[in-house]
Amino acid sequence: MSRVMPPYLGAAYYPEAWPAEQVDEDIRLMLDAGLNVARIGEFAWSSMEPEEDRYAFDWLHRVVDKLGEAGIATIMGTPTATPPAWLSERYPEILAVGPDGVRAQHGARRHVCPNSPVYRDHCARIVTRLALEFGRDENVIGWQIDNEVHPWQGRGCYCEVCVAEFRERLRCKFDTIDDLNAAWGMALWSQAYQSFAQVPAPRPDIWHHPSLLTEWALFHSESQIQYVAHQAEILRRSVSQPIGTDMMPTLACDYREMHRALDLVQYNHYDGMDTLWRQVFWMDYVRPLKDRPFWNTETATCWNGSTAANGYKEPGFCRVNSWLPVALGGEANLYWLWRAHWSGQELMHGSVVSSCGRPLHMIDEVREIGAGFRQCAEFLNGTRPVRPEVAVHFSHFAWWLFRFQPMINKFDYPEALMGRFYRPLMDAQLRADVIDPAADLEAYRLVCSPFLPALDEGGLSERLYAWIEAGGTWIVGPLADVRTLDATKYIHAPFGRLEDWAGVRCAGQIPGDPRDFALRWAHGAESTGSLWYDGLEPAGAATALATYADGPFEGLAAATETPVGDGRIVLLGTLPGPDDLGRLLLKCADASGIAPAEASANVLLVPRMGQAGVGFVALERENRPGTLKLTRPATDLLTGRQCRGEIAVSPYEVLVLQE
Amino acid sequence: MSRVMPPYLGAAYYPEAWPAEQVDEDIRLMLDAGLNVARIGEFAWSSMEPEEDRYAFDWLHRVVDKLGEAGIATIMGTPTATPPAWLSERYPEILAVGPDGVRAQHGARRHVCPNSPVYRDHCARIVTRLALEFGRDENVIGWQIDNEVHPWQGRGCYCEVCVAEFRERLRCKFDTIDDLNAAWGMALWSQAYQSFAQVPAPRPDIWHHPSLLTEWALFHSESQIQYVAHQAEILRRSVSQPIGTDMMPTLACDYREMHRALDLVQYNHYDGMDTLWRQVFWMDYVRPLKDRPFWNTETATCWNGSTAANGYKEPGFCRVNSWLPVALGGEANLYWLWRAHWSGQELMHGSVVSSCGRPLHMIDEVREIGAGFRQCAEFLNGTRPVRPEVAVHFSHFAWWLFRFQPMINKFDYPEALMGRFYRPLMDAQLRADVIDPAADLEAYRLVCSPFLPALDEGGLSERLYAWIEAGGTWIVGPLADVRTLDATKYIHAPFGRLEDWAGVRCAGQIPGDPRDFALRWAHGAESTGSLWYDGLEPAGAATALATYADGPFEGLAAATETPVGDGRIVLLGTLPGPDDLGRLLLKCADASGIAPAEASANVLLVPRMGQAGVGFVALERENRPGTLKLTRPATDLLTGRQCRGEIAVSPYEVLVLQE
Amino acid sequence: MSRVMPPYLGAAYYPEAWPAEQVDEDIRLMLDAGLNVARIGEFAWSSMEPEEDRYAFDWLHRVVDKLGEAGIATIMGTPTATPPAWLSERYPEILAVGPDGVRAQHGARRHVCPNSPVYRDHCARIVTRLALEFGRDENVIGWQIDNEVHPWQGRGCYCEVCVAEFRERLRCKFDTIDDLNAAWGMALWSQAYQSFAQVPAPRPDIWHHPSLLTEWALFHSESQIQYVAHQAEILRRSVSQPIGTDMMPTLACDYREMHRALDLVQYNHYDGMDTLWRQVFWMDYVRPLKDRPFWNTETATCWNGSTAANGYKEPGFCRVNSWLPVALGGEANLYWLWRAHWSGQELMHGSVVSSCGRPLHMIDEVREIGAGFRQCAEFLNGTRPVRPEVAVHFSHFAWWLFRFQPMINKFDYPEALMGRFYRPLMDAQLRADVIDPAADLEAYRLVCSPFLPALDEGGLSERLYAWIEAGGTWIVGPLADVRTLDATKYIHAPFGRLEDWAGVRCAGQIPGDPRDFALRWAHGAESTGSLWYDGLEPAGAATALATYADGPFEGLAAATETPVGDGRIVLLGTLPGPDDLGRLLLKCADASGIAPAEASANVLLVPRMGQAGVGFVALERENRPGTLKLTRPATDLLTGRQCRGEIAVSPYEVLVLQE
Repeated sequence: MSRVMPPYLGAAYYPEAWPAEQVDEDIRLMLDAGLNVARIGEFAWSSMEPEEDRYAFDWLHRVVDKLGEAGIATIMGTPTATPPAWLSERYPEILAVGPDGVRAQHGARRHVCPNSPVYRDHCARIVTRLALEFGRDENVIGWQIDNEVHPWQGRGCYCEVCVAEFRERLRCKFDTIDDLNAAWGMALWSQAYQSFAQVPAPRPDIWHHPSLLTEWALFHSESQIQYVAHQAEILRRSVSQPIGTDMMPTLACDYREMHRALDLVQYNHYDGMDTLWRQVFWMDYVRPLKDRPFWNTETATCWNGSTAANGYKEPGFCRVNSWLPVALGGEANLYWLWRAHWSGQELMHGSVVSSCGRPLHMIDEVREIGAGFRQCAEFLNGTRPVRPEVAVHFSHFAWWLFRFQPMINKFDYPEALMGRFYRPLMDAQLRADVIDPAADLEAYRLVCSPFLPALDEGGLSERLYAWIEAGGTWIVGPLADVRTLDATKYIHAPFGRLEDWAGVRCAGQIPGDPRDFALRWAHGAESTGSLWYDGLEPAGAATALATYADGPFEGLAAATETPVGDGRIVLLGTLPGPDDLGRLLLKCADASGIAPAEASANVLLVPRMGQAGVGFVALERENRPGTLKLTRPATDLLTGRQCRGEIAVSPYEVLVLQE
Repeated sequence: MSRVMPPYLGAAYYPEAWPAEQVDEDIRLMLDAGLNVARIGEFAWSSMEPEEDRYAFDWLHRVVDKLGEAGIATIMGTPTATPPAWLSERYPEILAVGPDGVRAQHGARRHVCPNSPVYRDHCARIVTRLALEFGRDENVIGWQIDNEVHPWQGRGCYCEVCVAEFRERLRCKFDTIDDLNAAWGMALWSQAYQSFAQVPAPRPDIWHHPSLLTEWALFHSESQIQYVAHQAEILRRSVSQPIGTDMMPTLACDYREMHRALDLVQYNHYDGMDTLWRQVFWMDYVRPLKDRPFWNTETATCWNGSTAANGYKEPGFCRVNSWLPVALGGEANLYWLWRAHWSGQELMHGSVVSSCGRPLHMIDEVREIGAGFRQCAEFLNGTRPVRPEVAVHFSHFAWWLFRFQPMINKFDYPEALMGRFYRPLMDAQLRADVIDPAADLEAYRLVCSPFLPALDEGGLSERLYAWIEAGGTWIVGPLADVRTLDATKYIHAPFGRLEDWAGVRCAGQIPGDPRDFALRWAHGAESTGSLWYDGLEPAGAATALATYADGPFEGLAAATETPVGDGRIVLLGTLPGPDDLGRLLLKCADASGIAPAEASANVLLVPRMGQAGVGFVALERENRPGTLKLTRPATDLLTGRQCRGEIAVSPYEVLVLQE
Repeated sequence: MSRVMPPYLGAAYYPEAWPAEQVDEDIRLMLDAGLNVARIGEFAWSSMEPEEDRYAFDWLHRVVDKLGEAGIATIMGTPTATPPAWLSERYPEILAVGPDGVRAQHGARRHVCPNSPVYRDHCARIVTRLALEFGRDENVIGWQIDNEVHPWQGRGCYCEVCVAEFRERLRCKFDTIDDLNAAWGMALWSQAYQSFAQVPAPRPDIWHHPSLLTEWALFHSESQIQYVAHQAEILRRSVSQPIGTDMMPTLACDYREMHRALDLVQYNHYDGMDTLWRQVFWMDYVRPLKDRPFWNTETATCWNGSTAANGYKEPGFCRVNSWLPVALGGEANLYWLWRAHWSGQELMHGSVVSSCGRPLHMIDEVREIGAGFRQCAEFLNGTRPVRPEVAVHFSHFAWWLFRFQPMINKFDYPEALMGRFYRPLMDAQLRADVIDPAADLEAYRLVCSPFLPALDEGGLSERLYAWIEAGGTWIVGPLADVRTLDATKYIHAPFGRLEDWAGVRCAGQIPGDPRDFALRWAHGAESTGSLWYDGLEPAGAATALATYADGPFEGLAAATETPVGDGRIVLLGTLPGPDDLGRLLLKCADASGIAPAEASANVLLVPRMGQAGVGFVALERENRPGTLKLTRPATDLLTGRQCRGEIAVSPYEVLVLQE
């Protein structure tokens, strides 16, 4: 095994694009920059197999060996995101097909059909060979399958193989076509099919049924998942290192399902200064997926760009952005990319060194980050973030469902979930896991399910009530429990079961476009709701937390609280503003015995513990001054400074505090 | 015949999408809501004919019978907007083809070729059967053909059948290809055809000749008209009830032509609070089309929506929106839809009751509307709106012509006609018919023809001059009489005949982009024109009403008045602002002995008379206080209140005033 | 030869679209308007050859003869922009193909494949015949090939012929496919080709390599160039008059290359009041291309428009717009069009007379322009603009390169070059030639190369250094010398040679999105840079002109000056604001012994000399008062006024000043 230890600081490296002799200079520069990992191979198929069945791995061994000798470990990527020209020419059926029936052209990326048996065979061939070459190489610390897998152009491939598989999938799911018709309500518009062969691959130019569209998205998510699992299975036969696939959870695939066949989460992101806070959400999602620290496999040092650079970041950003994954439970931060490309579709992207090998302006920050990682390695490797007792549901199914039926004009699920629910929670300093509906709830005392239309997802509804009765606090809504797994409404009530569970009756519902209605809170404050309005009538033990102060629902409850066993349900019939929501969340947390961290909203404070002790990683994420408060004295391992009580945190400062 | 009497209050009902047993609950709820009509069947082909030539009408009879027993009449729709999957699969040639040559997919709506003989045969089959089943059913009070017919995706079908018919149509119209070339000026750009077979179906990616584009639009309008007429002919063989087709005049078909083969106008609209005033225009257009009260077959109760809801409407809107068609000469107002869909492409649209059968928040308004309809039925059924003496021309041909040659940057014909001409007229309280150029003029004393490029349309120019000489006042322009029926300019003068008729010479023309020029009115006021500028030189009896006060036409007339026999022509060379235009219209009305209603601009006041007496329907349409003034005392039939003199009208209030 | 003398004032004339007898009225009106040239024939193929191989030129001879008798010369156009319907029907392979594989339809313009041998043959046939008919006609003063040639829909034709030629072009350029792979860096993304047959015609829906995209654009530029050269060769066999092609340099073709086979530049433009200043740039580009005064073959009299008119222009604009080409070295100004079309795709465009033959409102300006041309003819024909000693590089290759790799978010090369570099130069009253990199530098003392990525273009780098050493001042950057001719970066340094030449080291580079950094100028002023930031370290003789005052490059130079032999290099590492840039340019000009004209920024002052004497053409181009200063007394040939010292220039005034 590699002698390189986490936390890993590294970068994507494309030696295939450069003269062979340049690797020595690159290694020298990497060492100077303080890197200890290189991510290699992901697009290099034509260099590994220049002609069908003729392989060339010597160049790659030389690179891996030299890196290893220098103390730089390798993450090896399978090159299947970019088939060589000979492959596309000889087997054009491997290329993805658009809704207009036209095949992709060579020269792109991820332009392949994930279900093509021919492509799968070729992938199997190259992955097997690559695994045999490097599966026991002690310099290789992990495997990455393909790159940012996602359905072709967001919609997926429309080739004959895919359409047939889609129909087969429906046959397996529904058994008979009449069952499908019944589940989707296809009597409307005479849409009922007489056979599965009649089900169309839904083109974007046709006004299609949302259940069909949702199913097509699910199918293409699963196609990518199976595509990844296929390679994972092959790798597993020959490799000893952990296997992942570097992906963005934003890329229209079910991330949780994707990782069943994998060992660790490899995660890419390119958020900038304005949106860095979103990464707290995404890393809170990524962390609990696997019981193993995730790898942040791609992020920018300084700016993004393809053939045009964009989004310069101010001094300190690289620092805080690089520490963020480590703070939130990862053990690796890799930049994209090491040396800027000298040609091609991404030659303007920010990097660690320029195309001519000159370190970029933020190189001192990189060096400082590497030094910090090494300095704190013992504490970081010997501790893990303390598991939060708060969880927030996030669902890829919900995402697709809302994409094809937004319910409210311009509703954007991730924007609403992150910006209008998670952000107030985060700013209130409540640490949370972001979990899939299929995730266990045992570890949590407070679970939030905003905008979660299908409670049956992942069997959640079966587990949830018992968890509440056992003492859990469930904050639910708005727009929760309003759809079946077939993307249809319930017909017995507006909700599947919320009325029963919460002891309320929904007297009516009004979409929040374009009007906001006034709310009066039980504690006296007045404000407005937004987005959606359920007019609720609490009965029995249920009480109103907020009441409508105008509009057709004046006097009805907008939010209710209902004791259930040892726990309770807080039902949001509308979306409160950030201040009201923050207050409500803190109140619920307090009632559940959960205390927020003591820090200003712009400071992320993550408690850690483990065999190496107890402490925090803290970082300022908005480039402005902040504060945090320690209950026990601690030492900042980065500076050696002793800290106690209230501490000022500088813009973009990072502290590793050991008690 | 049904014992149900107008005014009809109803909703679209889709029992095919729900359990059979639910009809009883729906009827109970309908009665509770005060409805007396249900519109059924329009998309239910696959439920009526689940397999080719196997029919199932029992379910539908049960629904119609039960409704009838409850005192709820049925409007029966032919289901041809949505062919069943077996039809599209077995006869794919029935599906519409886009300009790219690709056929539509099953699962959409109105995705059929209107000219396909195969589709026409299938339509004939199902319509014949449906007519035999319900053509003598006393619970059925009317027939609706298809649903919102319009050319596929606005452009029409490009299949081989359509292209051949298009060329045949040209052959019939022009006889020889040289005649077409001469009429369209095809010597330009070497566009001249040698045969009709060379005429292309104009694709949107090609910069085509506006005469060709206009003709293509005309062809597709006529294709839909013939498609509707085909079903009307079949229905007429077996049914006793009146026949219509529910349509929006905005949907690229010539509404007047469409209704030649029909008995009554069925009219759909979804305007909201900001644009409700437009419905005054459209209903003023719809009313005079047939000598029979029109049916407002679709409108929203509370918000619009497909898979996303949008446009919540404030309390009172449902009231005024529902009364509007009755006030303006209709006898039915039907909501779309009765019960919100539980699945499909439109599951978020507002309705009367929710998917789970709960009345929506505006149910009390619906009940009040139903009660009001019943209360005033005798008066309403025994009177009709007094025929206005003012008419405004609206032309579908003009619409297409301006679409393909807007003449001025961003000119939008319906927006200009409604917002910049009709609205000042309406706000000045001049009641008008909106008429087609083909309509008789006898009934009118003041006729307005703004933006009417082709005076030869419907033989208007042949009838118009005599009508003026006989005492009519004709307000014409701007942008009138500037195009032939072939969508080309005149070459002897800027106008076809306006110079001759009005005794003026047009010294020049300037498009109003981006500049407005100043006007000085004969009565002294100064303001600006807009949109277009004719520089006019009055001669003989013609006098200037307004003169340009700056720009290249300074000193030339911008508007003139010319006595012609017992009447006169007011020629607008530019578009005055709303105040100037309102003043001018009132002056012309006054000179014609037409008095405006006395009410604030936001109040619609429609006089009625008939064997049941004399009175008004009045309604406030802007959700703000208004007033009206009665010359004779009257009773508000809705409240029993005695009214006299000036009366305050509350926001969205409706009054039915009987003298 | 025609007895008509320049300056030419004329218009495009389409007699084929009008009754034959109307030509007499048109000539009468032309004479009244003061025109002496008509441009005829460009789209009239179907009138010249109504059926394949049957020709009809009598009508055209009649027109040319009648015009000639009236003293109006003809510019004759080849009609190949619009093939007749019979040609497209019988030989559909001549029609351009889009990236989706679909052929264009008849009825468009320039919808042909430039490489089709079939189309070339037909062009040869009609051009040969036309040349034989009019090649020796004394009334014809010049030939125009086709009309505004440019690649089909901006991307070019994707037919099989084009794709094969594209690959053949690559084979000629690179010899082996490995050379191409090496030059473009195709190891990235496994893009390497094994054969030229694998190179795709890049579709816009695929994320393609910028080197491929750049090459495709080059290929299509050359295709048009060869298409024009083909006709030029045919014409040259039979015609005695000069040959050109009316084109816009904005239309994606290399203008300089295009004109190698031609005798004079024919130039079209439609800029309005806000953008008229751009025409100074374009005419400064057009003038030095050929040693013969250019013809402004198309411009608008009053407004633009296709089927919608737009952009009315104020009084005086026609005057200044018509004099501009004459001021800047042309000898012709022709309007598009003479008589407004009465039908077709462009029937709303402004013209000299309307469709019905009435002069438009600006006719007096036209008459005055014609009179002015005649009045000043002797001086204008006997002088030419004094050749500027300043040159600015403009490159079509740079344009394509930046289109496919903008380098910075939203960077727009022509906008930046014209608006952010050339305009400050123009406003500083420094007269310049705009030159291609291939142009000789001998005549200049100050050369500016902003945004010139490839210094090897046109062999520039080989000539440049010697020119500097010999005393030239070269202002270079930002974004110069950063790309090879293969659209890739250099890998030894950020620049190809700038570091060496200027004696500086570039410590880093930062794209200017979204941040501007502060600069401190050597003379003390503080301002900000923009767009791009090189952090420069001057060494040896190099000195800093401006230094970064904040940001990561604080203290590094943003602009440097380096003496080189008798000359020097001014390297801009960032783009200064217009004031700073203007000051810098004036300083460099002064050091080179170049004095600016003395006039306010809104006045264009062009010195002329020749056998007819010495003087200026001056014109005000922003419709506001201005001034100019004469060092010697002069007479305004338009008014006869004697001028000396500082002179007020009225809005849109034109003066022709002879000393």
